[in-house]
Amino acid sequence: MKAIFKKTAEPNGLVMEEIPVPPLCDNQVLIKTKKTAICGTDIHIYNWNSWAKKTIKTPQIIGHEFVGEVVEIGKNVTNVKVGELVSGEGHLFCGKCRHCITGSAHLCGSTKGIGVNTDGVFAEYFPFPASNVWHCDTNIPLNVLSIMDPLGNATHTVRSFDVLSEDVIVTGAGPIGLMAVPILRRAGARNIVVTDINEKKLEKAKMLGATATVDVRTQKISDVMATIPTMVEGFDIGLEMSGSASAFNDMIDVMANGGKIAILGFLPPEARIEWDKMINKNLTLKGVYGREVFDTWYQMNALLQSGLADEIAKIITHEFRYTDFAEAFALMASGESGKIVLDWR
Amino acid sequence: MKAIFKKTAEPNGLVMEEIPVPPLCDNQVLIKTKKTAICGTDIHIYNWNSWAKKTIKTPQIIGHEFVGEVVEIGKNVTNVKVGELVSGEGHLFCGKCRHCITGSAHLCGSTKGIGVNTDGVFAEYFPFPASNVWHCDTNIPLNVLSIMDPLGNATHTVRSFDVLSEDVIVTGAGPIGLMAVPILRRAGARNIVVTDINEKKLEKAKMLGATATVDVRTQKISDVMATIPTMVEGFDIGLEMSGSASAFNDMIDVMANGGKIAILGFLPPEARIEWDKMINKNLTLKGVYGREVFDTWYQMNALLQSGLADEIAKIITHEFRYTDFAEAFALMASGESGKIVLDWR
Amino acid sequence: MKAIFKKTAEPNGLVMEEIPVPPLCDNQVLIKTKKTAICGTDIHIYNWNSWAKKTIKTPQIIGHEFVGEVVEIGKNVTNVKVGELVSGEGHLFCGKCRHCITGSAHLCGSTKGIGVNTDGVFAEYFPFPASNVWHCDTNIPLNVLSIMDPLGNATHTVRSFDVLSEDVIVTGAGPIGLMAVPILRRAGARNIVVTDINEKKLEKAKMLGATATVDVRTQKISDVMATIPTMVEGFDIGLEMSGSASAFNDMIDVMANGGKIAILGFLPPEARIEWDKMINKNLTLKGVYGREVFDTWYQMNALLQSGLADEIAKIITHEFRYTDFAEAFALMASGESGKIVLDWR
Amino acid sequence: MKAIFKKTAEPNGLVMEEIPVPPLCDNQVLIKTKKTAICGTDIHIYNWNSWAKKTIKTPQIIGHEFVGEVVEIGKNVTNVKVGELVSGEGHLFCGKCRHCITGSAHLCGSTKGIGVNTDGVFAEYFPFPASNVWHCDTNIPLNVLSIMDPLGNATHTVRSFDVLSEDVIVTGAGPIGLMAVPILRRAGARNIVVTDINEKKLEKAKMLGATATVDVRTQKISDVMATIPTMVEGFDIGLEMSGSASAFNDMIDVMANGGKIAILGFLPPEARIEWDKMINKNLTLKGVYGREVFDTWYQMNALLQSGLADEIAKIITHEFRYTDFAEAFALMASGESGKIVLDWR
Repeated sequence: MKAIFKKTAEPNGLVMEEIPVPPLCDNQVLIKTKKTAICGTDIHIYNWNSWAKKTIKTPQIIGHEFVGEVVEIGKNVTNVKVGELVSGEGHLFCGKCRHCITGSAHLCGSTKGIGVNTDGVFAEYFPFPASNVWHCDTNIPLNVLSIMDPLGNATHTVRSFDVLSEDVIVTGAGPIGLMAVPILRRAGARNIVVTDINEKKLEKAKMLGATATVDVRTQKISDVMATIPTMVEGFDIGLEMSGSASAFNDMIDVMANGGKIAILGFLPPEARIEWDKMINKNLTLKGVYGREVFDTWYQMNALLQSGLADEIAKIITHEFRYTDFAEAFALMASGESGKIVLDWR
Repeated sequence: MKAIFKKTAEPNGLVMEEIPVPPLCDNQVLIKTKKTAICGTDIHIYNWNSWAKKTIKTPQIIGHEFVGEVVEIGKNVTNVKVGELVSGEGHLFCGKCRHCITGSAHLCGSTKGIGVNTDGVFAEYFPFPASNVWHCDTNIPLNVLSIMDPLGNATHTVRSFDVLSEDVIVTGAGPIGLMAVPILRRAGARNIVVTDINEKKLEKAKMLGATATVDVRTQKISDVMATIPTMVEGFDIGLEMSGSASAFNDMIDVMANGGKIAILGFLPPEARIEWDKMINKNLTLKGVYGREVFDTWYQMNALLQSGLADEIAKIITHEFRYTDFAEAFALMASGESGKIVLDWR
Repeated sequence: MKAIFKKTAEPNGLVMEEIPVPPLCDNQVLIKTKKTAICGTDIHIYNWNSWAKKTIKTPQIIGHEFVGEVVEIGKNVTNVKVGELVSGEGHLFCGKCRHCITGSAHLCGSTKGIGVNTDGVFAEYFPFPASNVWHCDTNIPLNVLSIMDPLGNATHTVRSFDVLSEDVIVTGAGPIGLMAVPILRRAGARNIVVTDINEKKLEKAKMLGATATVDVRTQKISDVMATIPTMVEGFDIGLEMSGSASAFNDMIDVMANGGKIAILGFLPPEARIEWDKMINKNLTLKGVYGREVFDTWYQMNALLQSGLADEIAKIITHEFRYTDFAEAFALMASGESGKIVLDWR
Repeated sequence: MKAIFKKTAEPNGLVMEEIPVPPLCDNQVLIKTKKTAICGTDIHIYNWNSWAKKTIKTPQIIGHEFVGEVVEIGKNVTNVKVGELVSGEGHLFCGKCRHCITGSAHLCGSTKGIGVNTDGVFAEYFPFPASNVWHCDTNIPLNVLSIMDPLGNATHTVRSFDVLSEDVIVTGAGPIGLMAVPILRRAGARNIVVTDINEKKLEKAKMLGATATVDVRTQKISDVMATIPTMVEGFDIGLEMSGSASAFNDMIDVMANGGKIAILGFLPPEARIEWDKMINKNLTLKGVYGREVFDTWYQMNALLQSGLADEIAKIITHEFRYTDFAEAFALMASGESGKIVLDWR
């Protein structure tokens, strides 16, 4: 079978090689890949940035966003059947700590990432723990099923706070920021304002349901707020999805008292916060990582079934045959695309 | 000025009479009525049922659903201005108990109903406590503003539990049951199933966003559930809005384990519940009365501003000039209408 | 090895017999019993009541409350070691449904009870699923560890609502009602009033921290409330642990508006509720069954470590050698005891 | 009457002068002071620091922590009677914004501080808004009643998150940090670890119920954690009450994944946070200011009635006659005292 490897510890991209189908453990299932999608994490590995250097042990198969078909099940597997269409949670958990045994595995301190700390899913076949499998609704398009992992990040972030009737600001219109927009709309937010520094992405945010957008290179958030008649004091909820220190601080300034901010974007160490504002305004900040595993998978699946799938499909801008992976990665690394899907069929 | 009275303690309907405009207290505002709407409570008074007999002291002006314009303010009023378009909370609270001082006035044990325990709003002018005023968004149609009180009941009931991604059953497609449907849709419910015994009301429920409806005279809920591919175990959330013992018990049977039911409809004393089902299924039942005052008013206002107003307008089936109140009440009492609005301008 | 069986489908008590130690599956551990405790469920089986008749398939080893030592582990077990002191969750869950995969296994619709639907723990050795094991703190006395299962019921019930600063009524001073008292005290309840019809049990409730008790044969709850200077409107939280229809209805009457009631006791089918009170008071009723599995186990363990163990030990009134089980069951069935522990060492 | 003034805009302490009793407005009550307590805010004014310089308009009566007796009520006051023993909320709210009308006045954007933005309570008599009055339980000692304001800060902070069964770290053993300890104990926290740089304050923390203390000048938190057998992964809840950047960052390091931190201490602008830790650990930070007004007052009152009053009394280290205010302020400013009370009777 073919698989895409980070072969050596160098910023020299990826290679595809032929290897045998890996053996299956008792509690695993073997999945034949249908589609995979490229995550920002994959680009870090591709570019071999400082995080990749200290994290990845080459050679390694990368990738963790996928949809595929189960072609074989291990001896102890009872919850998955051969022939099922599946996606799955890309983090491995210890299964023993307080968090794991109480339904909060996303808080496990011994988490490992598939395609990061172990071989990933950018391969024609791959073994996968049965306990991490998500059974897909076959009425949802394959492209959308292949990006349930990042959609789960967006869902987890939006679900951090109750947004019904509230005014929400999203800083950053990358793929996950864009996914947040229709989820917020479906969750009943009143006004959704999205900021970015890329006009095309902001246009897409509007198409997906944003009330207004702010190109922070040329506009002030407060000026845009003034154009929305139902805005009063400030934003009730903020979703930080840019990883930008200035975006974060601008957000603090436009939050209403009692506002709540979920932070998904990794802010740089130099990002500061004016603590007196945070305290005087009684703000809440919540760090968000990954998905609340199957709570989040259940919720996003229900949303997809309710019509979200059509909107999410629009965030995929390109699709390549898996053999053209080099072209796909170069495009994704350029920052000019939305989500990119690889077809392995 | 003209006002509509329950004049004597008899089932003989209502009369309109000419009286002087009432005097204004320091903390009240005088409102010139634009539109009012007829509530089920008003019909109980009109019909002089057993509840009305023990509750209403004749003669009394009735009515509590309204929108109007402030034409005068009392000496101590600082939060309302002459000329404002307003509606308002129809319950008077003691202002001293734990509930009143902690933002849960709806739980006050000394509540009085305007138009029930005191003179109401079916009059050309009426005094109204400044603290109960809701400042209306003038972009929302007057008809919709006149029914914010029952819309608040619907909003309070829906907001009792988190419905995002969940499957919801609504028993009863009267005006408040119908209002619940688009609120549920906007709050992100997956499947919304509505039951009733009136085909026309069920059709309206579908038009307003119900996934499916059940005419319980001829259909079983479980049969309809079987036609919805994404239904699994049962309903996660139930809204009881029929006041029917059989509807309530049917609902208990189709709830998923861990399900939560908000009960707005007054169930009859003979309504039973199978306690072992409730306990084994870990069900939650919550009695819902009135509105969580300005939390609910704020939320429904935000929803109306987000597009709900168009849907709610469809639940008003008739409008009469206030002088034709006798005809309006006769129609409402027949059960053949939706909400009915009286125009006082 | 010795085991205690319900041998035949008759109200003729239990028998102890010698059988081989059962074989171990891959995902099970073999436990050597140290202590077990007798549950009300065991008494139903002993008495062969109507529930037992339709539920139990004889011959069967009964019992599910235990503490023991792991003497062998199955091939796939990674979370338990030989030599560990353990207790465990007595319900078996499907592991596949929404509830099981999201940390709410107690809501699983395919639950089976150990000692009810399968062979139990009243035996010198028994196999037990590794996923159900609770690792015991060896500083907690064995007697207390043997009753973590019912203590979990009490913890689950108390934790249903936030009791800090609140006034709480507990109807029923059986073992679980008594356990609730010190948990409520440790959770910061202000006033704790316990009702029963047994003076000795009420005295124990007082010893365990109840503010006041009510013998409903001779006293009215409202009279007792009047003697507590800090009681105001009524109880904020109610815990129904009697299974008595009259106790439940008395409780409804003394709840404050907005009150919340957790129902653990199985109310009889004829138990009625005045729905208009429930709705006008905005009451919440929550059916409680079992434990929220390891959330509850974690919480009760932390409470035991904080000093609760001393108080819980006092609820155990008798201890027998396991060979004297007949005497122990006869005493428990008489209703005159608290918890009874059997020593298998 | 006598009153304590900040007379001129200089770091020259305070003066006591004789002035007429101020007139009463319709919605105010006149309070005869029994006891007052000195807040850190009063010391800022006394020292005339940079915050005081830009905030205080001299001459002004200072002070906001008090207990007194109502000696006269304004014309419109219905919720307070002459002769009542009262304390009160020291913030004035607009009464019109979303927060004020929904029971979250502490989030009001137009808040004014009594004794900061208006004349305060360090006087023999002072007028006070009836809506801000708290009716005191006369069974609670006057000294304790005089410090309900900072006790409310402590209660608000502790109540920010559910602490039952959890391990809690408190950074800072000043008066409010110390108050938090017995509240945490009564709320069911398992382990409570307090850090400071003052051995005497840490000893008091232990006396009030801390499991362990850390003098960060000489000890590492992790070393102390290792001595607590029931600590596992880290702290579930953190309360930042030191205003120290290093204390805050040390806390981040010892939090468990999913931990929640309430920040009451004003961190300096240069305080940094390692965002990747916050996100990877899914931490929540919540700014806490003031009290959730009467929710907090109700809760702390219930706790005081449950026995907390005895513990809180121990945090008051000195009491002076009001005429000796200069000595009292000098001592408080030295940082060597706990709470200091002035007696005005």
